[in-house]
Amino acid sequence: MRKYSKTDLDEMPKEYRRVFMNSVSGIKNCVLVGTKNLSGQSNLAIFNTCIHLGASPAMIGLLFRPITGKRHTYHNIKETGYYTINTVHRSFYKQAHQTSAKYDDHVNEFAVTGLGEEYHNDFQSPFVKESVVKIGLKFEEEHHINANDTILLCGKVELIIVDEKFIQPDGYVDLSLSEVIAVNGLDAYHSVELIERLPYARP
Amino acid sequence: MRKYSKTDLDEMPKEYRRVFMNSVSGIKNCVLVGTKNLSGQSNLAIFNTCIHLGASPAMIGLLFRPITGKRHTYHNIKETGYYTINTVHRSFYKQAHQTSAKYDDHVNEFAVTGLGEEYHNDFQSPFVKESVVKIGLKFEEEHHINANDTILLCGKVELIIVDEKFIQPDGYVDLSLSEVIAVNGLDAYHSVELIERLPYARP
Repeated sequence: MRKYSKTDLDEMPKEYRRVFMNSVSGIKNCVLVGTKNLSGQSNLAIFNTCIHLGASPAMIGLLFRPITGKRHTYHNIKETGYYTINTVHRSFYKQAHQTSAKYDDHVNEFAVTGLGEEYHNDFQSPFVKESVVKIGLKFEEEHHINANDTILLCGKVELIIVDEKFIQPDGYVDLSLSEVIAVNGLDAYHSVELIERLPYARP
Repeated sequence: MRKYSKTDLDEMPKEYRRVFMNSVSGIKNCVLVGTKNLSGQSNLAIFNTCIHLGASPAMIGLLFRPITGKRHTYHNIKETGYYTINTVHRSFYKQAHQTSAKYDDHVNEFAVTGLGEEYHNDFQSPFVKESVVKIGLKFEEEHHINANDTILLCGKVELIIVDEKFIQPDGYVDLSLSEVIAVNGLDAYHSVELIERLPYARP
């Protein structure tokens, strides 16, 4: 086993440390975030920092890198109050990854990647047609992490669209059946396979 | 596709909604958090809400449920300022799950599950012997999510111990080679398999 002290981490080349820290901290959720600004320009961006915040009320969190310059997703959410979170699957993880490219302001990532842009009910923000789970959220609150200027943005769930064939009788949504993607680090895409569900643990 | 409005979610039976929301929001990281209080009592608890916060400085976040009654992990961190995060692997996910049982105050989850308790350098908190990645953290700041009383606890990395055979030349730690576990919902344990790493995306 190799040990890294705080000094060892500080002395790593910046890009090496970025890759190391992003991967060593474990397997991550991989989602596409859909937004639309007030001028009607759609945006789609991949995130690996989506976190379940709670079920009552239903809430989900997204961590944003420091807001230096243009962050379309962040600004669109603050401008309109709405956004969507959509699952990524094996059939389109390359297109999902491509949304991380730094496109010009006028580019719609749906159009350049070929992913389907769709709308449901009266929801203002675009959903991803190919996703098995699509969640519409309303901005609720944000928290500035002082130590590194990242931002945790918290949203309340307004609408969920899910392919019902993945829903089990107790409410469990078996995403492994949908060939959902997980990510390790910034660019390593993984398939997942259910080993088993375990019963509630008692002493 | 089935649609759930905010009202549909509110009207779900509480336990059904808990299972539904925890699973529909995607695949999660699965880690064991090790702490020790000032009386020398060790504690080990499984979390599925561990999030990468940043690489410079190296930081990791943990989301805690509302602090109602005793939350040993949270209180130990606040009391001592230190804790560890350890990866979970296929060979011991059942023992990891068992740490979620509501044990009495005096119970050491290392002892009851049989997982190895070990110490490194001068670090006050216990690490999990069987884990391929062990991270020692120092409490930095916390944020109270007003909408649901959960708490995001942010820590700075002080020490990382990792089996060097999983480290790639560019710093990528290939956890899939270690049979690392991911979790969906509260109780569904998954294996992960690398599909591929993709190059940096350009327009």
